[in-house]
This record gives sequence, structure tokens and C-alpha cells, in this order.
Amino acid sequence: MAERLGVAIVGVGGAVATTAIAGIEMIKAGSNSLDGLPLADRDVAGMVPYRDIVFGGWDLTGDTLGDCALRHGVIGKAELADGAAALNDMRPWKAAGSTGYCANIDGSNKLEGGHRGVVKQIQDDLRRFREEKSLDRVVVVNLASTERVPNAGDAALRSREAFERGLDEDDAAISPAMLYAYAAIDADTPYANFTPSVAADIAPLADFAAERNVPVAGKDGKTGQTFMKTVIAPALRDRALHVDGWFSTNILGNSDGLALDDPKSLQSKLGTKGSVLNSILGYPVEDHIVMIHYYRPRGDDKEAWDNIDLTGFMGQKMQLKLNFLCKDSILAAPLAIEIARCLDLAKQRGEGGVQEQMGLFFKLPQTKGGEPVHSFPEQQLILDTWLGGKRA
Amino acid sequence: MAERLGVAIVGVGGAVATTAIAGIEMIKAGSNSLDGLPLADRDVAGMVPYRDIVFGGWDLTGDTLGDCALRHGVIGKAELADGAAALNDMRPWKAAGSTGYCANIDGSNKLEGGHRGVVKQIQDDLRRFREEKSLDRVVVVNLASTERVPNAGDAALRSREAFERGLDEDDAAISPAMLYAYAAIDADTPYANFTPSVAADIAPLADFAAERNVPVAGKDGKTGQTFMKTVIAPALRDRALHVDGWFSTNILGNSDGLALDDPKSLQSKLGTKGSVLNSILGYPVEDHIVMIHYYRPRGDDKEAWDNIDLTGFMGQKMQLKLNFLCKDSILAAPLAIEIARCLDLAKQRGEGGVQEQMGLFFKLPQTKGGEPVHSFPEQQLILDTWLGGKRA
Amino acid sequence: MAERLGVAIVGVGGAVATTAIAGIEMIKAGSNSLDGLPLADRDVAGMVPYRDIVFGGWDLTGDTLGDCALRHGVIGKAELADGAAALNDMRPWKAAGSTGYCANIDGSNKLEGGHRGVVKQIQDDLRRFREEKSLDRVVVVNLASTERVPNAGDAALRSREAFERGLDEDDAAISPAMLYAYAAIDADTPYANFTPSVAADIAPLADFAAERNVPVAGKDGKTGQTFMKTVIAPALRDRALHVDGWFSTNILGNSDGLALDDPKSLQSKLGTKGSVLNSILGYPVEDHIVMIHYYRPRGDDKEAWDNIDLTGFMGQKMQLKLNFLCKDSILAAPLAIEIARCLDLAKQRGEGGVQEQMGLFFKLPQTKGGEPVHSFPEQQLILDTWLGGKRA
Amino acid sequence: MAERLGVAIVGVGGAVATTAIAGIEMIKAGSNSLDGLPLADRDVAGMVPYRDIVFGGWDLTGDTLGDCALRHGVIGKAELADGAAALNDMRPWKAAGSTGYCANIDGSNKLEGGHRGVVKQIQDDLRRFREEKSLDRVVVVNLASTERVPNAGDAALRSREAFERGLDEDDAAISPAMLYAYAAIDADTPYANFTPSVAADIAPLADFAAERNVPVAGKDGKTGQTFMKTVIAPALRDRALHVDGWFSTNILGNSDGLALDDPKSLQSKLGTKGSVLNSILGYPVEDHIVMIHYYRPRGDDKEAWDNIDLTGFMGQKMQLKLNFLCKDSILAAPLAIEIARCLDLAKQRGEGGVQEQMGLFFKLPQTKGGEPVHSFPEQQLILDTWLGGKRA
Repeated sequence: MAERLGVAIVGVGGAVATTAIAGIEMIKAGSNSLDGLPLADRDVAGMVPYRDIVFGGWDLTGDTLGDCALRHGVIGKAELADGAAALNDMRPWKAAGSTGYCANIDGSNKLEGGHRGVVKQIQDDLRRFREEKSLDRVVVVNLASTERVPNAGDAALRSREAFERGLDEDDAAISPAMLYAYAAIDADTPYANFTPSVAADIAPLADFAAERNVPVAGKDGKTGQTFMKTVIAPALRDRALHVDGWFSTNILGNSDGLALDDPKSLQSKLGTKGSVLNSILGYPVEDHIVMIHYYRPRGDDKEAWDNIDLTGFMGQKMQLKLNFLCKDSILAAPLAIEIARCLDLAKQRGEGGVQEQMGLFFKLPQTKGGEPVHSFPEQQLILDTWLGGKRA
Repeated sequence: MAERLGVAIVGVGGAVATTAIAGIEMIKAGSNSLDGLPLADRDVAGMVPYRDIVFGGWDLTGDTLGDCALRHGVIGKAELADGAAALNDMRPWKAAGSTGYCANIDGSNKLEGGHRGVVKQIQDDLRRFREEKSLDRVVVVNLASTERVPNAGDAALRSREAFERGLDEDDAAISPAMLYAYAAIDADTPYANFTPSVAADIAPLADFAAERNVPVAGKDGKTGQTFMKTVIAPALRDRALHVDGWFSTNILGNSDGLALDDPKSLQSKLGTKGSVLNSILGYPVEDHIVMIHYYRPRGDDKEAWDNIDLTGFMGQKMQLKLNFLCKDSILAAPLAIEIARCLDLAKQRGEGGVQEQMGLFFKLPQTKGGEPVHSFPEQQLILDTWLGGKRA
Repeated sequence: MAERLGVAIVGVGGAVATTAIAGIEMIKAGSNSLDGLPLADRDVAGMVPYRDIVFGGWDLTGDTLGDCALRHGVIGKAELADGAAALNDMRPWKAAGSTGYCANIDGSNKLEGGHRGVVKQIQDDLRRFREEKSLDRVVVVNLASTERVPNAGDAALRSREAFERGLDEDDAAISPAMLYAYAAIDADTPYANFTPSVAADIAPLADFAAERNVPVAGKDGKTGQTFMKTVIAPALRDRALHVDGWFSTNILGNSDGLALDDPKSLQSKLGTKGSVLNSILGYPVEDHIVMIHYYRPRGDDKEAWDNIDLTGFMGQKMQLKLNFLCKDSILAAPLAIEIARCLDLAKQRGEGGVQEQMGLFFKLPQTKGGEPVHSFPEQQLILDTWLGGKRA
Repeated sequence: MAERLGVAIVGVGGAVATTAIAGIEMIKAGSNSLDGLPLADRDVAGMVPYRDIVFGGWDLTGDTLGDCALRHGVIGKAELADGAAALNDMRPWKAAGSTGYCANIDGSNKLEGGHRGVVKQIQDDLRRFREEKSLDRVVVVNLASTERVPNAGDAALRSREAFERGLDEDDAAISPAMLYAYAAIDADTPYANFTPSVAADIAPLADFAAERNVPVAGKDGKTGQTFMKTVIAPALRDRALHVDGWFSTNILGNSDGLALDDPKSLQSKLGTKGSVLNSILGYPVEDHIVMIHYYRPRGDDKEAWDNIDLTGFMGQKMQLKLNFLCKDSILAAPLAIEIARCLDLAKQRGEGGVQEQMGLFFKLPQTKGGEPVHSFPEQQLILDTWLGGKRA
């Protein structure tokens, strides 16, 4: 009999999560194609089929996922009445939250009981999820809103011992994302960070994952503008077209955009976007500007505009402009699904710690210590080699 | 002592050729950087340094290369008075021409004497070039204007014997580009086709090159829009974003644009542009439209506008638009230079026939028989592997 | 009691017509705002309110307007089940057609009986329409597919006498659009030409309209790219920015686009698009290129891309680019409605012949003889003056 | 004999000023066309010909205008060696400056002596300028860098009496721009404000100008993005296309951009840009975002990108995008010249106080009290009516 994978999502009521769940439910119902799923054409032993994925998860809202989805406006009433009807009966589990870490997002469906209490309840949720749904394995994927960057001096984030002590003392330096990552690793459950938040990438948790041999990966899903940047920059390097400047601006009107109206959350986001170019090109691009604007007329649609100033042969100047009219959750949801499948494959293969071969899914790929590869074609080659299967 | 490579250019008075020559002369004079030269950062044994390249070539105009360059408007008086002064003393050798094959381009500096006579004079030119300039080796690169597509039924293009007979009989089916290719191969001189014209890619000449073990490569330099297409399409495939349509339009005002005003030459050009997408994506893109317009206000500047219609997860539609304000000759000249260096490297390594590893330089890569690789990142990997050197 | 205006549409099953009818029906039902209706904010005595408009018309298809609308994809099942339900019961009257004049469009719902017979049936339709719907007045608006340009030498189009003789002899030079225009004028019914087809603008019919004092107006609705061109060009003239070139390209995938795949229909279309610039700027723009491409992924959505090359002070070059992602029928339908209302107002005011003040609705405004005004702001001022009312 | 007009420029060493002066000198020398000069085609009695304009002015730098121009990079060595050679001999007069009002701009060529002393020296400069150059009349145009917005509560800016007292007491609330405006009005010399700085538009100075019947006009030259905005918005209003949002972003790399890196100067700039849309459309655009970024690769070239979200008939959404690759000083310089000529014409006609008919030159047109007209076509009509002459 087919093995069943449970995917427990942090932020299960969000736009990306509800889109991912609706999409998989519609595939089960036969009303969705495999368009947009990057690994749909691979035949890899052990990789869970889309139809055998079961979802659950935490959120600060207690509304049904159907109501959440309608609010986001990515899927509509037609889908919820048909292939995605399952969402109408799904309700989030109580979630960990901290307005200190994410100012614009709060809710009433909240876990209480201090850090240790929250960790225990998360682990209880994972156990109950596995039992009630007769799952063979479970992974955790964090799709919650962006948290602010931790303070540089936070003592609790420096070592395993300090972190454990911080848990005991309910240290405010430990964010909700870290609590989920800790709980998952401690419960031998793979964890991926699709948000820019700091989680399994702090030293104490990365070490913990390696020690327990639990796969972890992150961070910040590479969807629209940064994806295109890591596609184009390697080619400019290979053609020796010097990048004098790269101006990137984004407009979007979903709740992700609203969260980024908090300057502290924006800082996390820009941090993961900025480091990409210099790494690929091998020299610093002095005028690399990245802007994100909350602009309501677009809703979940997102528009990116990039202008690249180039110097070519004989010192001559050229310009390349990109305009991407994309849909945030539509690009993100299939990546979240593939991340879950890859984490699970690593777990089955007995490969723990940071999963570097999953770098192509992330704006800021977590590594075991070295510099990350940012070039998308190189990342794809690395993943293809690891997967080992053939394209259909 | 350093070895010296001669590069004999078909169409030496053109915009790409004069830009390439001026650029190398300015590098020799210390007044040009290596920006835009794709292989400047490689350290490969046997590859000729830029400073050791010497240029010559044929053209239907007899004007000095300095006068030609001023007409094209890519480099100006300042460069010709300084680093590129050598162009003022260079004059094209008499060239093969056929208004039947390229309607809008003609001139007075023309070789006479029938096909066999023209071939002999081309070979005499190559010999004299080598002696007068004390060259160690010579390669031929075709940068002339686009010729029309040969007629499907042309008997002379079917076999070696028929081709030789066509030479004897001055068969009009044999184009100037074919005469240059034949002359070069017969003189053990590598030949590359930077134009869309049919030359060493007809069966008789491809066989001839393999038999004589002479490196040949082509065709149609991949510079602006098609380059970007082969950069972006593989990434769309890897993210499973389905391409519903790709509309590409170009405006340019140089003599290349004028030649393309001849519908027969345009047909050659569009032929090399069209086949790329389906090959990379693995399915036919039904609405793939490519337009080129002669538009005088731009001169040698070229603007490409691409619109890509995509279907992603849940069948949702997205659009990606590119706008490339580039300079035709500035992108093409360094490729022509690298092609010459790679041909010469193959020659030194004793590798003859079609050089498949050079596919990244061309819109329609010539192969030994199989389907060409069009994906730019895959092409780059193939070349890098062949080169074997390290990036600086 | 309110007066009722009947609008009889040539091509009533088309995308523009069904959108206009659905929009007005939805306004009657309270489920559509007045967005997009240019004269909604005017208070002009005698102008018929939107709610008092009643539609009918001819088409080569005999399908219900509901079925036609679903095929065009501008409005959907939701509208047809609700505010626009009336379309489900409306069927086109039999229409005049000529594959000689419009190659790609034909149908079975066709009038027979020779030119005189067709004219009589059109007039019978108008009479029956007025009686059955208790209408106070009727106007005819031509929204049918573009016909080819008539041949320059067609004798029947030279004078009233020749035209009448052509009607008697079923001369093939007389197109369907001319038959509708003749029938309307002869029946004292105002006629407007929203298509690029030649109709009331041939001398015999323009004279006829003046003689009978029947309002006529045309031609070719000014919706997307040409509208923007006539908005921007006057400002460039006023700032003395010299237009060196203007490159315009369009992609669209509706049946209008398909009709334009017939090169003869395209010629009509480009004719109305081309003359605009020189007239506004006062000098010839030598590089003015206009392209239209049928591109299926877009359906009724239309995308225009314009590039304008400018010379400013000190001879310096600049570029202005426009990218308009618009919807053809959504822009056109409200213009067709306002044209009907203005024609009717002219009729009530006793003003017959060519209605020059309606020029802002058309790409190629019909005049009484002089050169047309193309500048949109000047056209708007002329209409506002004629209307005489205040903006709300 | 022809009458000569002196134009005394505040910020004469800046990019706009040196471009204007070079352009006029080159017209005198016969090496510049009249392209880009909006009123070159008018024949208006009393309007000073371009050749009869003489320039002088103040700047915090003491370098020759030739050196200043080279630094800005708008005109080059070729122009300075030829038609614009006069700039090499021109040096700015000592200027009023306040780092409190313009943080990023300072210099050594500075007037001392308190407010009253500065005013007296400015007036001495005007007198000396007129005598030395045998001028018939003089006007002052402010082209200096943007000053910050004054504080709301500044007592000195509330009334004439308070302002005079502020002058006596060297009140820091009185900015350099106000000193120039006061000095000019008091010396019966017309004054225009091409910058966003607050100057003749504070009540005490507007009253002063009316009382003395001295023409004043302002403020903030309407060149690129705002110009296009006021061209397009009226047309969207006239077609009843509802503007849901308008996102405008700018990149530029000249010293104007650097000045705007001071958030207080940026605030002045955005203030003049923001109010335009609502005024033209007649309703508030809730998502109107305007961004300006200092981006070095562009130098004086400026790129504006606008995205307009529209709702049309049947509530359907459309998008219009503009991309303007313009040159800041090339657009601004001719406006500054025409402003000087119009001010002088008003002076000759005996029309003092705020010149409302000059509104088309400004982003935030100064009025006698009412709401300003922002629509560019309406502004053009108002100016044309006032000028009264014919177009050539």
C-alpha cells in the first residue's frame, strides 16, 4: 500500500498554505493539472506521490481553511464547492505567536504556557496528526508571516546550552519560528523554513539537527523576482556583461505585503534578497536597490520591475528590463509542496542536518557552513544529481 | 615567443568586424578593458591571448576599415584617432558576392573568375596573409550579411560530387558563403559561420570538414533576444511554468536590419530563431511569433521586446516581459573573437569536423547529426568542460 | 414618460455589441456601475438615459446573444444568469454579408434578394423594431467585422447616380456596410460606423446624408493604442519634443484579430491608424510603424506596446515607452453606446449630415470635407462645447 | 534695435542652468536647433527672441560654468570648445546658502552679512548685471537645489510685518530662496521658482508681489513623470476609466538625486508631485505612490516607470504602464528659458502678481488663491489664449 506523508504547516491559514492544500486536494479530485509543480516530471524511488500527501497545521486564526482561502482571493467559491471542498472542514491548530516578532500579525487561536509548554503542545499536535491520519511520516514546513531579525546580542541564540536555558526562562529572544523548529527536530521530524524568519538557521538549532540527523532546509522561498535574478545573473556573468546597477521594485497587495509594512519584517526580507547578486557575479554591484511596496489594487497578484544597467565590450552601456506580472501564492505553493517531498526523501535516505541540495527553493539557501550557491542553473544541476531520477 | 593567430573575416568592413578589430587593437594599445569578452577570465593552455590576434579579411567595399567603422557609428573618431588607429590603414581584400543570394548588399571590390577562380584567390589570400603577418595559424570567420535560403531542390548541395561539379560549372546554387567555407576547409583552415547563411552546414561541406579533420562551427551568433530566450526558457521548464505563447519583436536600424528588409534574407534569420523554444521546453509553443523591423532612429542600437504568457499552478495565468536595449555589434564582436580562439584551440588539439561544444555561441548550433542543445546554461557547462581551465 | 431609443446594431452578435448590450441590461438591473461610460457625468437636455436604450440588430449568426457572448469570453455565465439574462432571449435578424468584402467571416443567417431587396429588408427590420418595442427613435451603429478597402476604380462609388445604378445592378463594388448606411439614411435613421469599413464616408452616401439631413458619423472606434497616441502626441508637440520614430505593436486573440489575419482587412485597419501622427505633429514621422498580431493566449485581452523616439533640447535623444494591457470590447462597448446617444441628440436638434463634433470617438474622424482634428484634448473640447451641459 | 533680456539664475552652476545657457549660446552661434523649446513656433509681439537673452547668476561654487557643466555631464568638451565656449569665462556671483535648509549642498562662494545684507547684495548684483550687459530688463529664475519644507509654525512666514521683522532679526525660518524672491520683488524684477522650495508662494511674498505689481510664478518645473501624468490623467477622466492606483518610481543619478537623499528635501519634492492626480480626476486615488531613488549608473539620465491600474466598463481591470527614459536637464532647461520669456512678457504688459497662465510649466502651479489647474491640455489652452499669437 502507498505510504502517506503528513505535512504540518506553520501558518496553515495563509495564502500560500491554503493554495497548496487546495491544489493537492484538486489533484486528488482530478480537477487540477500538474502545471507549476517542478518535480512532477521526475521518477524518483521513494518520493511520495502528490496524492498521498495529507495536510494539517497551526495558525493564529481559528477560521476554517475555506474561509481563510476566500479571504486571500487566490482560489474562489467554485473551487471550494468542488475539488477543494475539503478545506471547508479543516481548522488550524492553536499556534505560537509573538507580536514582538511580527508586529502586524496576531490572532486569538494562540498557544499558551510558556516556551516549554508550547514546544510540548506542538509535539503533541504532530503525534496526534500522525495517528489520526494514519501517516507513515510527517514533515513541518513554516509558511507563516515574516518575523523581525533577532537582536545581534541575544545571548539565548549563541549556543545549545544558552538556547535550552532560554526555553526554560521564556526568553523573548526565542521567536515562534524557533520554537517550531526546535519542537520538530526534537521529535525527529524534518523542518523547512519557507519564510525569511530566523529559525533552524541559528547555530544552536543547526547543530541540533545535525546531531539528531534530522533534515532541515531554508530559507525564504525563491519565487518571482529573486528567482529571475538568479536565472539571469549567471548568464550575464558568462557573457562577461558587467552589471553596473540593478534596480528592483515590487508591488503587491496581499497580507504578505502588509506584514512587510512593518519595517522590521521588511529588513528580514531585504536581507535575504540582497546577497544574491554579488555572490553570483563575483564582484560587488554597488547600485543594487530592492524595494517592496504594499499596493492594494493588486491583491495577491504581484508585479516586479527590474532594470539592469550593463557595460559590454568597448565600455558600451546597455539596459535590460524585466517586468514580471506574477501571482505570489501560485508560484510559492508548489515550491512548498516539493520542499516537503524532498525533506521526506532525505529522511528516508537517512540524510540529516542541512539539506544543501535543496538550495534552489530558497532566496538564502542554508548551508553546512560554506557560501551558498545562488545561481539557479547550478542549483538545479545539484538537485537533479541528488534526485538521480530521469525526467519523464 | 608567443604564437600569433590570424583571423580572416568574411565581411571585414561590417559593423561587427570593425568593432571586433577596433576592440582588439585598443586592448593592444591598453585603452580597452576585457568587459564583454566571455572567456577573458579563463586560463586554458593553448588558447591564444587577445593581444596575439591579427586581423584581415574580405569585403565588397574597398574603403578603409576606419571609413567603414565611422559609417556604422559603433566606434567614433576618438577611438580611430587613438587606440583603433590601425583601422585607418586596413583595406579589405576583394570579396566573393552574389546579388542573387543577398539582394540588398553589393559592391565594387569583387572577386571575378568563376567559382574555382574565386576559391583559388581566397586560398591565395589566406597564404599571403599568413606569410606577410608571420602568423602561426589562421582561422576564417564569416560575418557577412545574411544570404537567402538555398532552394530545396538545388542538386549541387546534395553530395560532395555534385558540389564539386557545381564548382566546375559555376552553379548559381553555390553561394559566396559556401565558397569561403569550401576554400577554408580545403586549405586546412578552421571555418565558423557567424551569419544565418547556409555554408559549412550543408552535407557536402560538413562531410568534407570531417574527412579533412578541419574544425567548423556555426551558425548565426546568439547575441540579444535569442540569447535571453535560451537563458529564461530552461528556468521556466525547471519551474514547470507552461509557456502558452512567446511574442518577440525587434527594432534595429543598422545595415543588418536593411539586409533583413529583403524577405528572403529575413526567412533565413527567422529560421534560426524559431526552433529554439520547442527544443528547450520539450513541447511545441503554438503561439511563438518573432518579428524584426528595420527602424532607423536606432542605428546600431537594437531593442528587443518579449512577452511570455505562462500558466502556473492551478491553471493560473502570468506574464513575463523583457525589454533589452542592447547594441548589436557590441554583443556580437566579442563572440566572434572567442569563436576564433576556440576554433584555433580545437585545431591545436587535433579535433576536426563540427565543434559541438561551441554551440553556446550560435542561435542554430551545428551538430554532427543529433539535435542541438539550445539551453544556454547547458551549453555553457559543455563548453566549460571542454575548455577544462579554471575561471580567474 | 421617458422617451425610448432603439439602437440597431450591425454585427449584434459580436464581442463589442454583446458587451454593450449586457452592460446596459446590467445597469437596468442595478448590477453595473457607470464606470467606463465617458458621458455618464454630463447633464445634457435631450440625451437619452442609459436605462431607456433598447437593442436589436443583424448578424450572420443566428445564435442567441447569450451564446455569442459566452463564445467571446468577455462576460460569463454569472452575468448571463443574472443582470444580463435578457441576452439569452435575443436573436440576431438576418444580416447582409459578402465574403468578397470580409473573407474570414461568414454565416448562415443571411439576407438574400439582391441589393435592393436587402435594403428593403433592412428598412423593414427598422420599422418592425420601432413598432414592436414602442420606440420613439432609432439609430444604426455598425459594429461588424472589418471589410476590405474598395477598389480605387469602382465606378459605383463615384456619384449618387452611379451608386443607385449599382444598387439596381447588384454591383459587387457595393459592400454590406454601404447597404446598411444607405438603408438607414434613406429611412431617416442616423448611422454611425464604428468599424474601419468604408460606408457612409463614400461621397455618394455622405452627400445623401447631408441632403436628407440625417446625422452620420465614423469611423473606426478609437479605443486603445490610437487613443493613447492622440493623447500623448499633442503634448509632445506642445513641449517641442521632436518625434523621430514611433513603433507600435499589438497582440490580441479575439475574432477581430482573426479577421485582421486577412491582409485586405488589415489594410483598412492600418489605414485608419497611420494618418493620425503627422496630422497632430505637423510634420511627417518617417519611421511610424504599426503592427497587429493575432496571438491566441490573450483572447479578448489586448496588449499594445509603443516605443517613441524623441529628440529634445541640444539634439539629445530620449525614449518613451507605453505598455497598455487593455480589453478591447471593454473599451469599445461604452463608446458605441455614447455614439448612439450623441447621434440621437443630433437628430433631435435637427443637425444632419456628418457630425464632426463626434470625432473623439473615431480613429479616422469623418468630416464635411476639411482635415479632421485628431488631437484627443482638442476633440474633447469640441464635443464638450457641442454638448453644452455641465459635468456632474 | 532689439531689446535685451537679462536672466539672473539662482544656482547658475547647476545642471539645468548650464544646459540652458549652453543651449542659448549655441543658438547664437548657429550650432543648436530650436528642438525642445516649447514656444519657438509662436509669433507673439514683445516676446524676447532667444538670441537676445543674456545670462548671469549666483552659486555656492565659484568654478567657471564650463567646469560646472563638465561635472554635470550633460554637455561635453566638444560643445565647450565650440558654440558654448562662453561658459568658460562665466563665473557665478556669490550666493545665499543655508545648510539648515538644504543639507547636502554647500560651498565656499557664499554671501555673508545677515538677511538684510544678503538682500542688498542680491539687488546690487541685479543692478550691476543690467548696467554691465546693457540690458533692457532683467528677470530672476531660481534653479537651485531643493530646500526643505519650512516648519508649520514659523512666525516669520505669516505676514509681511513678521517677515520684515524676520529679515531684521536674521530669523533662520527665512530661507535663501525667500531672500532671492524678496530681493527681486523689492527691486521690481520678476521672479520664478523652478524648484520645489518655498519662496514667493508664502503669503507675505505673494502679497508683496501683488502690491508692487511684479510678476511671480512657480513652482517646481514639470518635466518628466509629472508632465506625463498630467497629460494622461485628463484623458483617463474623459474616458471614465477609473484610476484604482498609480505607482510611480524614478531612478536618477545627478546631484538633484543626491539632494533628494536628504529626506527633508525629498518631502518638498513629493509634496509637489502628489497633489496632481486627485485634482485632475476629481476623486481621491487611494493608492498613489511616488518614489525617487538615487541610482548612480544613470548620471543625468532619468528613468521613470509608472503603473496605472484602471477599472473600465463592467468593472473590468486594465493596466497602463509608462517607461520614460529621459534626460532631466534636457527637459528642464528649455522650460526655464520659456519661463523667463513669459515673465518678461507679463512685465511688459503691466501684469503683476502671480502669473496663473504659466501653470503648465510647474508641478505645483502657484495661484492667486484658487485651486490650480493641473491638466496639461487645459493649461496649454490657457497659456495659448494669453499669448495670443499664432503657431508658425
